[in-house]
Amino acid sequence: MVGGSVPVFDEIILSTALMNQVISFDEVSGILVCQAGCVLEKLSQFVQERNFIMPLDLGAKGSCHIGGNVATNAGGLRFLRYGSLRGTVLGLEVVLADGTILNCLTSLRKDNTGYDLKQLFIGSEGTLGIITAVSILCPPQPKAVNVAFLGCPGFAEVLQTFTTCKGMLGEILSAFEFMDAECMQLVGQHLHLASPVQDSPFYILVETSGSNAGHDAEKLGSFLEQALSSGLVTDGTMATDHRKVQALWALRERITEALSHDGYVYKYDISLPVERFYDLVIDLRARLGLQAKHVVGYGHLAGYHVSNPHTRPVSRGWQPAPERDRGGLQRGAAGGPGALRVCLDGRAAGQR
Amino acid sequence: MVGGSVPVFDEIILSTALMNQVISFDEVSGILVCQAGCVLEKLSQFVQERNFIMPLDLGAKGSCHIGGNVATNAGGLRFLRYGSLRGTVLGLEVVLADGTILNCLTSLRKDNTGYDLKQLFIGSEGTLGIITAVSILCPPQPKAVNVAFLGCPGFAEVLQTFTTCKGMLGEILSAFEFMDAECMQLVGQHLHLASPVQDSPFYILVETSGSNAGHDAEKLGSFLEQALSSGLVTDGTMATDHRKVQALWALRERITEALSHDGYVYKYDISLPVERFYDLVIDLRARLGLQAKHVVGYGHLAGYHVSNPHTRPVSRGWQPAPERDRGGLQRGAAGGPGALRVCLDGRAAGQR
Repeated sequence: MVGGSVPVFDEIILSTALMNQVISFDEVSGILVCQAGCVLEKLSQFVQERNFIMPLDLGAKGSCHIGGNVATNAGGLRFLRYGSLRGTVLGLEVVLADGTILNCLTSLRKDNTGYDLKQLFIGSEGTLGIITAVSILCPPQPKAVNVAFLGCPGFAEVLQTFTTCKGMLGEILSAFEFMDAECMQLVGQHLHLASPVQDSPFYILVETSGSNAGHDAEKLGSFLEQALSSGLVTDGTMATDHRKVQALWALRERITEALSHDGYVYKYDISLPVERFYDLVIDLRARLGLQAKHVVGYGHLAGYHVSNPHTRPVSRGWQPAPERDRGGLQRGAAGGPGALRVCLDGRAAGQR
Repeated sequence: MVGGSVPVFDEIILSTALMNQVISFDEVSGILVCQAGCVLEKLSQFVQERNFIMPLDLGAKGSCHIGGNVATNAGGLRFLRYGSLRGTVLGLEVVLADGTILNCLTSLRKDNTGYDLKQLFIGSEGTLGIITAVSILCPPQPKAVNVAFLGCPGFAEVLQTFTTCKGMLGEILSAFEFMDAECMQLVGQHLHLASPVQDSPFYILVETSGSNAGHDAEKLGSFLEQALSSGLVTDGTMATDHRKVQALWALRERITEALSHDGYVYKYDISLPVERFYDLVIDLRARLGLQAKHVVGYGHLAGYHVSNPHTRPVSRGWQPAPERDRGGLQRGAAGGPGALRVCLDGRAAGQR
């Protein structure tokens, strides 16, 4: 995510792009075994034709490899519903530095024999070995998917809407994403995507996935009514049609693309208690002033409490940040109880 | 589970029973931090008073410790809905053999910094260190819980009912347990629990947990109608009232207790592809003949494909199994693509 995959000095870049074969897929269990260089979107298409979905999805899906997703422990847009790769990855094949092939490619749903060595490689970013094959559990394709897109007056209301949402949508809530007004402005300016709701300081995308379309629409409707009448949300639109669902998702998924048209981007992927997250964006804007064209915040409220959003200062030109500012940023991040994380970028790596 | 926690020769038994304090509970996030000796049932009561539930539940809950649950990577009755401890355990404090205290007691929902060392201790059964504290994510208490108890004509129908059930109940399916006729007979004989349905070769318990009682009852009703009309199930009863739900669960949860009244029990906790599981019970009955009073099979169909049921040959008296029979058992188990697992028993350990 911060260009870790871009060679600068004497790094060795290893591509697994030619290792792009599906090894097996069990249409009863949904267990997919494939080589590490398979592109996430292609795997998604492959399992969707068989009425399953991949347990992870992310903006870079068109180019990122499943091996990189696992090596970086990518969270992504389905984390809220299907959990982390630590639960859905059933097995790995890994090549160690001395050439040893570690075969942990079990496809047992529950395998309690011995230590779970594969866990060490999930998120190890290639430092312990190269992942060459992955066994992963795919959930059945949900029968009904609904998306609501909402305008929200403040970040406190974003958080309250999330709490209300969890209570009223419960088991069918599959995504909860927010973006700020600057994100929407940049997506409009560079990609000509129009906001489907009134201009607002914040926007929220809520997705439900369930087994009964009628029940799901009823739950989502009650939630919207409650959110609007209590003033948590000032405007909203709902989609069940596949194309309209895709169009609403594009507003969120294409933020990264819009930013890349806007300037040179410094990217920070951070975990902080959600209550504190947006303060960081405000502090950075004040700190950087005119040095940054834009500082934006967006992302998912992945857990019950801790967010995994993205801060994006866009600068006017690429240059190492002045020492003073880098110090400021580090203090800003370390001041909260969370951690500042620096991740590999898009292509072969998982992007969050 | 096979008496691994019972000292026989020169083992050291370390009890964490006095380390029974809750360290913290966050009522927004549901993150519980507690000492390793906390009894699972007490933790359950503690979080339920705050509208959360523990992500795991098992028959031994009244005596097992959370530290033992983690050390043995206990699956339990909520595995189907809330997944494994590898996802719900957020952090651990562990004391290594040289006295080093390893503090991985984070309570971040997503912490991607460095290697996820705590995973090595989940399921390591004390061989790498002693777990002294646990941080675990508790899901919100579901608003509606329904249980159906069904009679089923054969094991093939049990599996087909499971497939139908997953399709029709989807996201609200929280447990699917089966037991054979001998289990029901022993529960009746020793504990005086009566079957709520007609005598059948197999019985199934289905539990749903959801956010809307009306929607859930409607989904469960449609499923029952379909299962009865297609002959997959021959009789059934449904409960929403808490006491009746408890009574139906008791039939499944108290099998272990009934077996202990029946004789000396050899216990095997195994993972096999579900299609093959019950063959093992039939083969064992034929092989052991009169040497065993009963050979019973029961458990949950935890994944989409692979079961984690329990086989229980009950012998007339305790004695080492004759070499011939132990060989037979090992062959029987190793013949399938699954693994024969031998687990620690109840008290301080997790029972699956």
